[in-house]
Amino acid sequence: MQEPLFLRALRREPVERPPVWLMRQAGRYMSEYRHTRANISFLELCRTPELCAEVMATAVERLGVDAAIIFADLLPLLIPMGFELDYVLGDGPKIYNPFREPSDLARTRELEDLSEMSCVFETVRLTRAAVAPLPVIGFAGAPFTLAGYLVEGGGSRLFLHAKRLMYTHPEAWQELLGRLARTVARYLRGQIEAGAQAVQVFDSWVGVLSPEDFRRYVLPSLQELRANLPSDVPMIYFGAGNPALFPAFAELNADCYGVDWRAPLAYADSVLGPHRALQGNLDPAVLLGSRETIRRETLRILDAFGSRPGFVFNLGHGVHKETPVENAQYLVELVKTWRADDAKLRAEKQ
Amino acid sequence: MQEPLFLRALRREPVERPPVWLMRQAGRYMSEYRHTRANISFLELCRTPELCAEVMATAVERLGVDAAIIFADLLPLLIPMGFELDYVLGDGPKIYNPFREPSDLARTRELEDLSEMSCVFETVRLTRAAVAPLPVIGFAGAPFTLAGYLVEGGGSRLFLHAKRLMYTHPEAWQELLGRLARTVARYLRGQIEAGAQAVQVFDSWVGVLSPEDFRRYVLPSLQELRANLPSDVPMIYFGAGNPALFPAFAELNADCYGVDWRAPLAYADSVLGPHRALQGNLDPAVLLGSRETIRRETLRILDAFGSRPGFVFNLGHGVHKETPVENAQYLVELVKTWRADDAKLRAEKQ
Repeated sequence: MQEPLFLRALRREPVERPPVWLMRQAGRYMSEYRHTRANISFLELCRTPELCAEVMATAVERLGVDAAIIFADLLPLLIPMGFELDYVLGDGPKIYNPFREPSDLARTRELEDLSEMSCVFETVRLTRAAVAPLPVIGFAGAPFTLAGYLVEGGGSRLFLHAKRLMYTHPEAWQELLGRLARTVARYLRGQIEAGAQAVQVFDSWVGVLSPEDFRRYVLPSLQELRANLPSDVPMIYFGAGNPALFPAFAELNADCYGVDWRAPLAYADSVLGPHRALQGNLDPAVLLGSRETIRRETLRILDAFGSRPGFVFNLGHGVHKETPVENAQYLVELVKTWRADDAKLRAEKQ
Repeated sequence: MQEPLFLRALRREPVERPPVWLMRQAGRYMSEYRHTRANISFLELCRTPELCAEVMATAVERLGVDAAIIFADLLPLLIPMGFELDYVLGDGPKIYNPFREPSDLARTRELEDLSEMSCVFETVRLTRAAVAPLPVIGFAGAPFTLAGYLVEGGGSRLFLHAKRLMYTHPEAWQELLGRLARTVARYLRGQIEAGAQAVQVFDSWVGVLSPEDFRRYVLPSLQELRANLPSDVPMIYFGAGNPALFPAFAELNADCYGVDWRAPLAYADSVLGPHRALQGNLDPAVLLGSRETIRRETLRILDAFGSRPGFVFNLGHGVHKETPVENAQYLVELVKTWRADDAKLRAEKQ
């Protein structure tokens, strides 16, 4: 039997059309998900593998996408590392004992044993079974993004506490990121052992950094993470928010790079080179617009990159909760019916 | 008498050292400002030219910078255009009757007569007198950033209402931005007539857009604004947040570009070319770090760009309210004592 389309595209093998999945494809924009969440908190849901698998399988079926990602969250990993996490309605995640001073290293555990995350590994197994023969992506937060939450004590726009620590105590900062990198590597290896066929590392907030700071304060920990992952399972790195970081991202040697909508795919392609797969990059806000706009913007991306060996169609960020489900379905349908020959016809007409 | 250092640098004339000023140099990080604000609301302060001039003159003197910018805000201009604005403690600006539908154009006035903004023109006059012989910069919000506030009804991280309007009703969107562009042009001309020797256009939120969308939905209004400003007064455009927009920014023909800390100056320089002045770009969060970090990062910028004809030292964004004033003073001192010869010595040592 042939390997799934998504995995062939990640390996830059020739494919008949680009695979498509959407970041945050199971979420509040979908009525089935809202129904599930009506009876359970977000953290409880994350701790219930049967429901996690069901939520994702439902979304995959409704949308008709080519891959599932496990339903999980970036932050529960921080709990066994020593932090008190909760999700406050309307305010997002909150860490009650944030990391603020070098002395906080004493209470920050690097995890050798990931048994406290076993429900996530079970989620991988159940999701594999629920969506077969489609492939399942495991994921985790990147060291900087996890450290950002740890130091701020939650989400942030500017990450000033994190930067203050970084600029004032660079050794403690590097030690913290190193512990996170090694913990995340073991966590992702656990997901791979449980059946994840690719892994995505979310660096959702790295875009608040300048390229100089990224290289000095963050890249070493990402390289340590990369070195501790198996080379035969594709790793996707999604560093959001600042296109000027791409030249430094290239040094990470990920197999595939997620491309934020802010960065033109042509730019990512030229900086990263043809030996890397690309995944992206429609602005998820386009799904709030007219069908005409959705079609124009989707075909613009497909006509330019749909035939590139190693291209995965996705959004440039997660689906917004205000998105009409039928617009997401329309998008997936556009990708699945796109053919390179039509692109040529459209180009000739112009 | 020689023209002020700042204006000579904007005109790319040879200067003995780069001029320096800091965005948001008069603000909550300074005790004198907090003292003034203890007795008056932000909007009232903006409406009291004597205090605006005093607040800025005090900051200029404490820091020893080479230019003043008028103390004012982007949003009061929207009040005579038909919108109800207030500043809610802790929540920032709020517009109680936001622009949401094409039919809202009927109640959105393009201003021909700027007499309702006369207190800002008076602020320009009084600030000129208070900081002489230093030059005074006028400023305004860019059409996209003003429209973003108008449509969202305040600040926003994602500007989804604005994008939904843009993607669903492109004609109404362009009409709104055109009215804003022409109003802003008249407002800036009024500031120039009152004595502003340069103007800065703040596009604080434009970084939420992809380059494609910026060109399609925003650049035409910026070009209309540019065409309606006098060519002999330097115009600085500060489009924050997305370095991938710089190739499109180049088409705006500003005299000087503010560079966000996310974008390397070398990149901005290569994209915009030597015929444009550059202003930036230290991450303002560096001022929360150690003196060692402040010195290293400031000298990194100066050694690379301090001798470039047309370079103004500034932060890559406004001063954070958590900034110790003595760190800002130290930064200004570093710039003012920097010499190209020392840079050469440092380069040889490496």
